[in-house]
Amino acid sequence: MAKIVPNISVDCVIFGFDFNQLNVLLVERKLEDEQSGAVLIDDWTLTGYHIFEDEDFDTAAARILKGLSGLDNIYLEQFYAFGAIRRVNAPKDSLWLQHQLEGFSERIVTVGYFSLIDNTTVTLLHNNRNVRWFPITELPELGFDHKDILEKALEKLRSKLRSEPIGFELLPEKFTLSQLQRLYEVVLGTKFDRRNFRKKVLQMKYVIPLDEKQKGVKHKPAQLFIFSKEVYERTKTERFDFSI
Amino acid sequence: MAKIVPNISVDCVIFGFDFNQLNVLLVERKLEDEQSGAVLIDDWTLTGYHIFEDEDFDTAAARILKGLSGLDNIYLEQFYAFGAIRRVNAPKDSLWLQHQLEGFSERIVTVGYFSLIDNTTVTLLHNNRNVRWFPITELPELGFDHKDILEKALEKLRSKLRSEPIGFELLPEKFTLSQLQRLYEVVLGTKFDRRNFRKKVLQMKYVIPLDEKQKGVKHKPAQLFIFSKEVYERTKTERFDFSI
Repeated sequence: MAKIVPNISVDCVIFGFDFNQLNVLLVERKLEDEQSGAVLIDDWTLTGYHIFEDEDFDTAAARILKGLSGLDNIYLEQFYAFGAIRRVNAPKDSLWLQHQLEGFSERIVTVGYFSLIDNTTVTLLHNNRNVRWFPITELPELGFDHKDILEKALEKLRSKLRSEPIGFELLPEKFTLSQLQRLYEVVLGTKFDRRNFRKKVLQMKYVIPLDEKQKGVKHKPAQLFIFSKEVYERTKTERFDFSI
Repeated sequence: MAKIVPNISVDCVIFGFDFNQLNVLLVERKLEDEQSGAVLIDDWTLTGYHIFEDEDFDTAAARILKGLSGLDNIYLEQFYAFGAIRRVNAPKDSLWLQHQLEGFSERIVTVGYFSLIDNTTVTLLHNNRNVRWFPITELPELGFDHKDILEKALEKLRSKLRSEPIGFELLPEKFTLSQLQRLYEVVLGTKFDRRNFRKKVLQMKYVIPLDEKQKGVKHKPAQLFIFSKEVYERTKTERFDFSI
């Protein structure tokens, strides 16, 4: 069996969007005293683990995420490597590491991956660990430096959402501008002026209005749009996106 | 003295812009047979080395860059971690590593940093190694996986130049739109239509036209502009930059 690399791990920051809020996937970290049953540690971490000697980072990230949560075939993007000298050396973290049998180093660097998915459509498998979604505005206590990692991931996610059309994958194929605006507001944690937002979107050649309106809604049905990846790619070089 | 971490290094991709082309800083890697004097290895690498046990990545990157090139106080940004299993195991690379005394691992992961500077204003110190700028269109043979690292760095640099106003730091305080266009064309490796480029730039609230023209030029003097970081920051939240 392949051996782990004692001083290198991967952590996955899985963001889940549910049309109401932005969530993140966490795993409970619980340690009880074997004799007294007293709870020594009870907090949460990102889905992470060491890489194996025969694995590259991408492979390790997919394997770790699947093992802890059951999530499979999720697009993961590497966003940053964390190498602070004492990032796993708080008393609670040292205690946790001492209770593992794998022979971890005292100094561990970790490579962060993130993803943004529609968390209403996925099923978590628990594999003996307690795994769940938390709204990013209501986080529990996090172990190691995972709060820093989560903040950096959020910064990278927001920057990516501002500069690339990754949000459209979370919308239905035909969407309204209100749905698009809601997505941007929830992920960026901000509010846009409705008129300015519409004006901006209507300038995008790759957001294409349809001669079709919403059906079966109680309010006045809104116009539907589609996103064309093909038009986006074809018009890419004529843009330089820091402009507006 | 601090010990190195045998399986973790940092590599710096220093891009230099000289108003004519985009360059990258490389270090010669040369190994001769001790008896015959035959050249066993003669190629080039990025400025890189292992981290020390008591160093984080940022500190290591600055120390390595300074040690190999003399370059100091350069803003370095981490862009990607490289962990392919056999990234330093080509025969030439293994031979090189065997001739070093530091006790490197057979598998080494590396964290990449990049920077973009005006290379006409800096002086390189050589510290017993041959260090020089190469145009990115005329690269020599590179050791390890440094060609892959360089390509990834270039991709990240271009993406950043498209989405953030990093280019202005390379221009004089007061610049013409032709200078700005030249910078974008050289770094992105593309050509822009002059009229479209001007139109785009004139929409940017943070590129501010002056009531002032170039002086001492032979051609018709062009209008001068300044970049306002303050205006850029203040108008940031009202933009979402993937739009145009």
